[in-house]
Amino acid sequence: MIDPAVLEELVAALPGRVSTTATDLAQYSRDQGPVLRETLPVAVVRARSVEDVQILLQWATRHDVPVVSRGAGSGVSGGAHATTGCVVLSLELMDRIVEISPDDEIAVVEPGVVNADLNAAVAQHGLMYAPDPASYRWSTIGGNVATNAGGLRCAKYGVTRDSVLALDVVLADGTLVSTGHRTFKGVAGYDLTALMTGSEGTLGVIVGITVRLRYLPQAVHTLAAFFDDFPQAAAGVLAIGRARVQPSILELLDGRTLEALDGAHGSDLRRRGGSLLLVQTDGYGAGAEADAIRGALIGLGAVISEEGSEEAERLIDLRRHSRGDEVDDLYRVGEDVAVPKSQLVPYVAALEDMARRHGVKLKVVAHAGDGNLHPTFWVERSEGPQAQERLESALDESVQRALDLGGTITGEHGVGQYKRRWLAWEQSPEVLDLQARLKQVFDPSNILNPGKAIVS
Amino acid sequence: MIDPAVLEELVAALPGRVSTTATDLAQYSRDQGPVLRETLPVAVVRARSVEDVQILLQWATRHDVPVVSRGAGSGVSGGAHATTGCVVLSLELMDRIVEISPDDEIAVVEPGVVNADLNAAVAQHGLMYAPDPASYRWSTIGGNVATNAGGLRCAKYGVTRDSVLALDVVLADGTLVSTGHRTFKGVAGYDLTALMTGSEGTLGVIVGITVRLRYLPQAVHTLAAFFDDFPQAAAGVLAIGRARVQPSILELLDGRTLEALDGAHGSDLRRRGGSLLLVQTDGYGAGAEADAIRGALIGLGAVISEEGSEEAERLIDLRRHSRGDEVDDLYRVGEDVAVPKSQLVPYVAALEDMARRHGVKLKVVAHAGDGNLHPTFWVERSEGPQAQERLESALDESVQRALDLGGTITGEHGVGQYKRRWLAWEQSPEVLDLQARLKQVFDPSNILNPGKAIVS
Ligand SMILES: Cc1cc2nc3c(=O)[nH]c(=O)nc-3n(C[C@H](O)[C@H](O)[C@H](O)COP(=O)(O)OP(=O)(O)OC[C@H]3O[C@@H](n4cnc5c(N)ncnc54)[C@H](O)[C@@H]3O)c2cc1C
Ligand SMILES: Cc1cc2nc3c(=O)[nH]c(=O)nc-3n(C[C@H](O)[C@H](O)[C@H](O)COP(=O)(O)OP(=O)(O)OC[C@H]3O[C@@H](n4cnc5c(N)ncnc54)[C@H](O)[C@@H]3O)c2cc1C
Repeated sequence: MIDPAVLEELVAALPGRVSTTATDLAQYSRDQGPVLRETLPVAVVRARSVEDVQILLQWATRHDVPVVSRGAGSGVSGGAHATTGCVVLSLELMDRIVEISPDDEIAVVEPGVVNADLNAAVAQHGLMYAPDPASYRWSTIGGNVATNAGGLRCAKYGVTRDSVLALDVVLADGTLVSTGHRTFKGVAGYDLTALMTGSEGTLGVIVGITVRLRYLPQAVHTLAAFFDDFPQAAAGVLAIGRARVQPSILELLDGRTLEALDGAHGSDLRRRGGSLLLVQTDGYGAGAEADAIRGALIGLGAVISEEGSEEAERLIDLRRHSRGDEVDDLYRVGEDVAVPKSQLVPYVAALEDMARRHGVKLKVVAHAGDGNLHPTFWVERSEGPQAQERLESALDESVQRALDLGGTITGEHGVGQYKRRWLAWEQSPEVLDLQARLKQVFDPSNILNPGKAIVS
Repeated sequence: MIDPAVLEELVAALPGRVSTTATDLAQYSRDQGPVLRETLPVAVVRARSVEDVQILLQWATRHDVPVVSRGAGSGVSGGAHATTGCVVLSLELMDRIVEISPDDEIAVVEPGVVNADLNAAVAQHGLMYAPDPASYRWSTIGGNVATNAGGLRCAKYGVTRDSVLALDVVLADGTLVSTGHRTFKGVAGYDLTALMTGSEGTLGVIVGITVRLRYLPQAVHTLAAFFDDFPQAAAGVLAIGRARVQPSILELLDGRTLEALDGAHGSDLRRRGGSLLLVQTDGYGAGAEADAIRGALIGLGAVISEEGSEEAERLIDLRRHSRGDEVDDLYRVGEDVAVPKSQLVPYVAALEDMARRHGVKLKVVAHAGDGNLHPTFWVERSEGPQAQERLESALDESVQRALDLGGTITGEHGVGQYKRRWLAWEQSPEVLDLQARLKQVFDPSNILNPGKAIVS
């Protein structure tokens, strides 16, 4: 596939960084998303410095070799899947926290820093890095920025983009550029930082990140509210909104998810209700906010756990890991649509109806405060290709319905490779074309993660 | 300048929308920023619909006529100044609030809606549109988006970009595109919404805006803290940060500003202190937060107004209008740098030193929670050109010093026309070039607000 002499040139230019062992090629060939066509990279490069990345990209430009950037590989859209003839560039060893400035309330990190590690390091200064994807113990800040990751407490604190101030980016030809500013505000020139955020490795390789930190909350209150069924719990989300109280976390779990948690952890959640709403408030007003929310939910018939914050916090922890039990494949696909909040109830009803009609299994968790749902559809592998077709039909319908209700195909996971087939359902030919032309500005030879994030 | 037949074609295509009266040409020739070279537009078009805008841009593309978009003309960087041979496109008559969805917590507006009008309309639903530039009673949402405006309560709620979900944009050739989504989160494709936000009319004309609304706070507490001098008040900003309490408003006024307010309103602020810090907390925790802040500031020797929230709120209202007393010109220039918070104290000291050395007058207000300062430098017009040169030197030095401290040339007002000379001090040739190439993607014939926002 690749000319051995070309590969030799890379090995010589980046001694000790390049691997072509079968184990590495396999391990770095995919993320957690469904694999449409198994593909191995021609090599894996574990960069240790910005210069490493520049050398790789200069080489890649010279020889027209695709480069797939990779953080922890926790993505679920196939954004980090290897593509034909590519080198996978792993940033995981660039994992230094370069600076924490407690007075400026910012941190500067290399891309491979794991989200949880950054949070642990800044906590001693009374600070936190707010965006907390459920994969926070594992995913990297570079990957979080490249996907514009959401998370649990994004309901209150916003998504990754809202916490990124500046980026160092290596462009396709190896040029290093810096975007943004160390200050919280800044409007000099176009917002290249926001453009890079969420670009899934297709516009440049993120090699340095300046983030804004937030204050660790002075107090935290957590509620677990059980409802008879999922639509009622979704109505609870709206009731909290109508009470005009802003929780920091608002997670919705359906009965099937409760069953799965019971199975894995020996709990009795499903017995206590057909659906669970987990609510966290934080800050100086946390107690009063929790009271207001309790009032709104009890009015709807919710049963609030009497075990108090402790059990509820344990449940949030379980929720953070409730997705990790299984890896997606072509028989089990986790979705990531978002709908306007008012559409949560009808959308959830539509999902249940779809699952029934297509004969597929369904469980749903949602970052409900943002209207961002993660339905997982699955069929038994033993049922074979016909079942898989039913699964595809259910997926397509669930995405189309979300769009019909004013939603989006992806709230936080990114288009990656797997969701490209739906992008044109959401965006007009003119918008798709604009994006293809932006891509050309940054990556004229299309070597950066080709076939991902946009359609061109 | 413009071929009369070409202008006739426009008048015929947009009956009743085109004005060439001397009054209109003069009135629409400039915003509130310093004018480098007086220039009149060849016509003013007051659009009433998206179609009007499309027709204008098709015509402009056909005849290669520059188009300067304009909201209220409250900008202070010359972004809406007329340029040679241009048509000024006023969006002020497109002022319909198209939709308020209290459950989705969003509003859809035309670009000419005035910020305060949107806030008044959503308040009855317990909601607010958070970004509140001091010009909020006057400036338009379209202009706010085009400049990515900041404001007072942005310390807590973020800048305009953080509240914009979706845009309708007419491109240079008249094509209408929609970016973004009605949902709070969404990562499908590149973030064109963020790219448009702050692009100052150089990438497209914003004709529709979907904004996220926030909850009107359940309670508000306001403190007025007087300090002996400005550096001490700036130290107070840091102390609040170190207490890890997030105010919604944190405004800093120096002695000269207090004198100006006293002069205008008959108050005795300057007698009570050499500098004033105005602090607002909001939400369920407002009272406890205000207490924590009071504690931190008294420890620094601040005298907190005993007249309570009421006086402080009146002062915030005065602050909102403290910039509007005078229009900038070449003898009086308001700056808009931002520095990392830890640099507020040294930067303020440096500013005072500069003013002394260059023999110019200085007063400063700051959105201190964001490190965003508005020093106004001025000289007496009667002192003539030499004084003006001293002013220019002071301006240049103040901008360079902000950059040296890790800051930016513009925190919220935009580069416009006036700040272009400083842009290359902040951004590398590679970044400037990327922006020029992005501009080309959107506006290949360079008819959209040429000579603004970027250097090319
Ligand atoms: C159990 C589980 C829970 C999850 N929960 C959430 C959640 O709550 N919210 C959420 O948003 N996501 C969630 N995810 C998805 C995933 O964790 C996020 O997308 C995360 O941001 C990916 O980070 P990563 O370091 O693993 O990146 P990877 O998966 O390695 O890469 C993701 C994408 O970014 C690109 N990329 C990575 N690093 C760079 C870089 N330095 N420069 C340029 N491009 C780069 C890759 O090419 C790829 O396109 C979850 C995943 C799992 C498995
Ligand atoms: C007293 C006073 C206080 C101020 N306080 C603040 C403050 O606190 N924070 C802050 O950020 N700014 C502040 N400003 C500056 C100014 O009010 C803001 O920049 C505001 O956002 C401009 O809105 P506008 O409708 O007046 O736009 P204009 O001044 O008319 O235009 C501003 C820029 O946006 C472009 N533009 C306008 N409308 C559109 C559109 N629909 N599509 C495309 N481009 C468009 C114009 O071409 C121009 O480049 C203040 C100004 C004054 C005079």
